[in-house]
Formats: sequence, structure tokens, C-alpha cells
Amino acid sequence: MKFVKELISRSDAKNKVFEKFEEMLDDKFENIEINKAFGKICFEDVHAPCNIPMFNRSAMDGYAVIAEDTFGASQTNPIILNLVKTDSINEEEIYRLSTGMKLPENSNAVVMKEYTKEYDSFVEIYTGVHPNENVSRIGEDVKTGDLIIKKGELITPYHVALISSLGIKKIKCYSLKIGVIATGDELLDIEDLESVEQLEKTAMIVNSNSMMVSDLVKETGLSPTAYRKVPDNREELEKAIKKALLENDIVITTGGTSVGDRDYTIEIIKKIGNIIFHGVQIRPGRPVGFAEAEIDGKKKLLFVLSGYPVASAVQFELFIANYFKPRKSVKLQINRNIASSLGRTDIVRVKLVEREGFTKIEPLRITGSGVLSSMTKADGYLMIKENIEGYEKDEFVEVYLF
Amino acid sequence: MKFVKELISRSDAKNKVFEKFEEMLDDKFENIEINKAFGKICFEDVHAPCNIPMFNRSAMDGYAVIAEDTFGASQTNPIILNLVKTDSINEEEIYRLSTGMKLPENSNAVVMKEYTKEYDSFVEIYTGVHPNENVSRIGEDVKTGDLIIKKGELITPYHVALISSLGIKKIKCYSLKIGVIATGDELLDIEDLESVEQLEKTAMIVNSNSMMVSDLVKETGLSPTAYRKVPDNREELEKAIKKALLENDIVITTGGTSVGDRDYTIEIIKKIGNIIFHGVQIRPGRPVGFAEAEIDGKKKLLFVLSGYPVASAVQFELFIANYFKPRKSVKLQINRNIASSLGRTDIVRVKLVEREGFTKIEPLRITGSGVLSSMTKADGYLMIKENIEGYEKDEFVEVYLF
Repeated sequence: MKFVKELISRSDAKNKVFEKFEEMLDDKFENIEINKAFGKICFEDVHAPCNIPMFNRSAMDGYAVIAEDTFGASQTNPIILNLVKTDSINEEEIYRLSTGMKLPENSNAVVMKEYTKEYDSFVEIYTGVHPNENVSRIGEDVKTGDLIIKKGELITPYHVALISSLGIKKIKCYSLKIGVIATGDELLDIEDLESVEQLEKTAMIVNSNSMMVSDLVKETGLSPTAYRKVPDNREELEKAIKKALLENDIVITTGGTSVGDRDYTIEIIKKIGNIIFHGVQIRPGRPVGFAEAEIDGKKKLLFVLSGYPVASAVQFELFIANYFKPRKSVKLQINRNIASSLGRTDIVRVKLVEREGFTKIEPLRITGSGVLSSMTKADGYLMIKENIEGYEKDEFVEVYLF
Repeated sequence: MKFVKELISRSDAKNKVFEKFEEMLDDKFENIEINKAFGKICFEDVHAPCNIPMFNRSAMDGYAVIAEDTFGASQTNPIILNLVKTDSINEEEIYRLSTGMKLPENSNAVVMKEYTKEYDSFVEIYTGVHPNENVSRIGEDVKTGDLIIKKGELITPYHVALISSLGIKKIKCYSLKIGVIATGDELLDIEDLESVEQLEKTAMIVNSNSMMVSDLVKETGLSPTAYRKVPDNREELEKAIKKALLENDIVITTGGTSVGDRDYTIEIIKKIGNIIFHGVQIRPGRPVGFAEAEIDGKKKLLFVLSGYPVASAVQFELFIANYFKPRKSVKLQINRNIASSLGRTDIVRVKLVEREGFTKIEPLRITGSGVLSSMTKADGYLMIKENIEGYEKDEFVEVYLF
């Protein structure tokens, strides 16, 4: 096949893609309101503009006191303190507050309501408290200047809670428009599908790639636009790619990556821009292409993914998701031997299984890169890198979790 | 505290909640178009209505043949077959096709284009193929009747690809309206926040809980409505809870779970409905409440979560997320001793760390349940269940991954 001579290694390909991302992403952000930021990718390092708590705060419903005033108090020997309503207390004074309220000046502890009895102008307390007892202290949770979230991190509900608690209303998030185009005469967009029988009769297949890739883009915290499928026609494909490049920062095509008569994608991209690589030493997913183009003075990136969904999912994972939202990984024992070839990176979908009380990795047996059903059963994947011939049963292997 | 006498175990509480979910969820679904189903929870077992592939399909660009006709072909000894364009071939005939196309009748293998030379009416082939070579066989990926996705599974981009490939245009997903209410005089909705200084001056805190809980609901594949914060005022709180119950299937409140003067939530819910439990033997998160109510003849469920974000996040995780979207878990070694008390379930946030080439669990040291920053650093959590006093260093412990 034509691309064989240009095959590069997975890590070289990854580095080339990541470099281009770094170049392009400089100004690709938008300010997002914090209550809409969940699931997006943070574009900036955020440091705390203030402490949390911002002040010494009661951790309980009860009474603020000067701890030293309470020493020795007990059920049989209560201590009596004067109830005041000022925001500063003196010796022998006590101030009623609820959980979360700011402690009055000079107070340094809180007696829980349960250990008190309030009268008109004084309170009996039945237990002593030490300094800072039942107090959430200023800066205890976050100190001014602490790093709250790093550039590139996915914003979780917990980040939203933390960032908003600091009084931050907006946050910079990646803003990238990603266009998705599937090519192939045999494809039928789901909108155009009337019945299952129609597929059988016409020998067409549903354009599931556009939907899958769009959803992978969403899962990565970015915004996709899925276009209608494009037939294997040079003019229409060129028009579609140019339109998508105009309207997006990144365009992802699926299909048309091999060298059949009808695979015009690479040819067209060569005309429009500059192919950075075409063909990577990975399995599945070898015929992946990556290119750049300048449209109206703006740098655009193009990924040419396979038509096979398993291959395109792997290509998306290694070169796109891996940049914006790298997977969590753990090292676990593999429960059977698995072989690969030197010089090639194999991506193997796996399930987590429990064996003899341990969590182990079970590689899924699959035939061919078209085997969709293996993808929905996998808990993650492992990589057999190019300098490794495989793994032996019970070896610890890094697994990347979906 | 009042609720202490009613404390129930985590597993009892979980079972009570899950039972009520089962009762309520019977008819809580909607038909979602498959290209909008990603991230939602599937409401039905879906079985394949057809095979994938639906027919024997070429896995390569090339020529369909009867394999037996090609035996013995080689570079030096090509075999010549007659090129036909019918959808059925006979002995000694050959048919041109591209990847993904249906094989003509009687053909049983594909010769890759690379090993052929086409002339006007015939094709020379330079390699033999065995039956089924370069063919994706009918049902190879999915067989009619195969279970594709189970009720309760989260729909991934891979499910979308698989389900749509089967010609399924819509899928039943959980449809639950979930209202989120935060209570507390000290809360300031983010919309009303003008500056960080405002917080310090007024001793208020941002209502981050409504946002966090809403985002947790979204993360679980369900749809939240966040209401404005409600002050600690019996009438307003009652009005707000009733309104939310009318407009939603489930209402989640945060704050007002303890027994302070101003904590009216439980009191109000007792009036409107039936408290199923209030107080669970967990740490953090003990004062969690769960109730049911009937509004206009419709069963509604109510969760009364803590005002502390870490506590409310844990309560949400154990009783809500755990039903709709249980976490993936792995058993890993813990890298230090960790103690708990019998009779109580401790939920401990952890980080994954690499130690001596192994992935180990490192419990995060936190003080108090208000420590927000620990949540954003955690990779997951472990549970020290009520019948366990703790774990020793290097013991294998199940960790639930975020």
C-alpha cells in the first residue's frame, strides 16, 4: 500500500500532533460561566484569590466563646457566660451562632448547642472546649494563591464547587470548533433511514461514524458539528472539506484513508494543505492521516481517520482525546499471554475481571478492526508499545480506563 | 442530636433508596434519538434486530471471487478470471468492489487490489485466497438477538455507533426531573455575587452546592433544575419544596439537615410526606435524609443532603449516582494504615500513586467534611464498611474511580 513507506511510530505521530495543538491552541478559549463549565477543559491555571473559609467560621450550631472561659465546665459544674449580640466579645461573654456563621472578634471556639442551656441574658455551658474547637479556621481549606485547577484539566462538579466558592464567576475553557465528516457511497445518514430492511435491500450501512466521533468529541469536552455524509465523489468531497475547514478549527474525516480508487480524501488534502503524516505503526488504526492547512490566514488541522469504527475510535483516542482528556491509568496483572510485533504499537481493549480476589486485566478477543461490539464491552485498553513483543500472564500492565 | 437514635446502616439506607427508585422508575422514560442519547442512561435491554454485518462484506478494496478459482495463483503464475458486473458470479468470474461492499452471490473471498491487474474484460490475479479471506462475514460482529445494551447502562459513544449501525433510530432512556434546592441565610447565588470582597464584608458564602449537585445530576445522565437559594424561613422553604416537588420527580435539598433552630427542612418534609430515614452511619454525610411524598397522586422522592459540599457529594454518590451510574472499581494496595470505627462506614477519598512500579492507593488526609480541595484532588474513594476496623498498609482494597 502507498502509505507503508511513510509509516511513523505512534510516539512520533503523537508528538507531531501535540506540537501542532500547542501552536494552534494559544488563543482558542472562551470565558464560560462557572455554572456552565462542567465537562469542559480548563484553559488556564487558576489560583485562589482568597482563603476558604474567608473567616473563622462555626462548624456547629452553638455559641462562640473564648475557650479559656470554658475550661472545667461539666454537667455537674456548669459555667455561666453573659449572652451578647455584638460582633466582638469580651471575657466571660458568649454569642449565639449557627453552622457556617462568622465567629465574633476575640472568640476562638464554639460550644455545641447540645451542651448548653440559654436563659434571658446568660447561657449555662456543660462542657469545656479547647481553642479552635468546632471552628473552621480561615484558610483551612484553601489558602490565597493555592493552585485550584491546572490548564488542561477537565472541570468536574467538584471543581465547580471549589471555584465558585472562591467567588470566581467565569473561567477560561478551551473553545474549539470541530467538524466531523464521514465519506462513503455506502453510508446512509440516520435521518434518512426508513427501516432496517432498507439497509439489507440497498446494501448500505448507517453512518454511525459521524455520531460516534461527534460523541467522542463531546466526551472530550469540546464541541462537534457533524456534517451529512459525503459520497465518494472528488468534487463533492473537496467542497465538503473546504466548507468544514472554513467553519471549524479542526476537521475530522472518517473513511477514505486507504488507497482504493475512490479514496480521494488524502489526495484532496494534499491539494488544500500539507500532510504531516499518513500511516502510523499502530494496530488497529494504521492508515490514520494528519494534516494542516491555512484557510483565510487561519491555521486549521485535519485528521483523516479510518472508516472502520474501531480503528477510528482508537485513532481518536491516541491523538485527540489523549491530548485534551488523558485517561486515568492503573497497573494490574494481565490474565493471559498476549503477543505483538516489534516496531508496532498494538492497542488492545480489555475488561477488568476479578480473579482470586484480585482485579485482573482480560484482553478481549476480537477479529478484525470492525468489531464494534468489543468496544462496548471494554473497560479500557492497554498498549503493547513498539519495543515490546508482548506481555506474559500475571505481568503488571498499565491499563487506560474508559 | 435528635437523629442519632434513628441512625441506620449504609447498606440498609442504600436498599431503602434503591427500592423506592425501582417503584418509581417504572414509567420514567422517554424515547431519545440515538444521536442525542450519548451520556444518558438506557432504560431497556436492547437486542439486535439484525446481524452486523448484514451480509458478507468486503474487508478490502479488490475483487470478489470464488476462492477455489484462485488456488495456486502467484506473481509468476497469475490466474485470469472474467470480469463481470452482475450481483451473482459463476466459476472463473470476478467482480470489482470496494471496502464495505456486499459480496455478489456465489463469491466467498476477496483478492486485494494490490495483487491484481485489471484489463478490459478480465483480471489477472497474483495470489490465491482461501474461503472467507478479506471478507467480513454476516453476523461476525453482532448476531440477531444479541444483547447490545442492558437497562441501566450509561450510553457511550461506542454504544451509539453499535446501536445506530443496527438501524435503531431511537432508544428508551431514563427521564427524571430532578430539582435542586439549597437552603441557608448565609448563601449567595453566584448570579448575585458582585465581588469577592462582598463575601468577606457580608460573611456570606457562595451557593456552590446547587451548582455542584446539578452537575453531579448531569454527570449521572439525568436532568437537573437548580432553584434559587432559599433563606432559613419556614414559609419560604415550605413553598419552595412544594413547588419543586410539583415540578420534578425527585427533589434534592442541601443544608438544613442538622437540628439547629433554623433547620426546618426535615420538619417541613414530615408535614408534606413520609421520612424513610434521617441519619445514616456514614462518615462524612451522617445527617442525610430520605423521604417520599405524594403530590397530585404522583409519587415523589426527596433527598435531604448536608450543607457541607463534601458531605453532600458523598451522600449523592452513595445513594443516587450509585444507582444510576455505579463507578468502575479496582482492587489495589493501600500505601498506609487507615482506621475506622466498627458500626460506621467511612468514605475516604484517595489518590492513585505509583510506588515501586505498582499503582497504589493513597488516602487523602483531610480535616472535616468541609474540605472542598480534597475532592478535586481525588481519583476515587474507598469505603471502610461497618464490619471492618480499617485497613493495613499493603492490603488490597477496592477503590471506586471517579
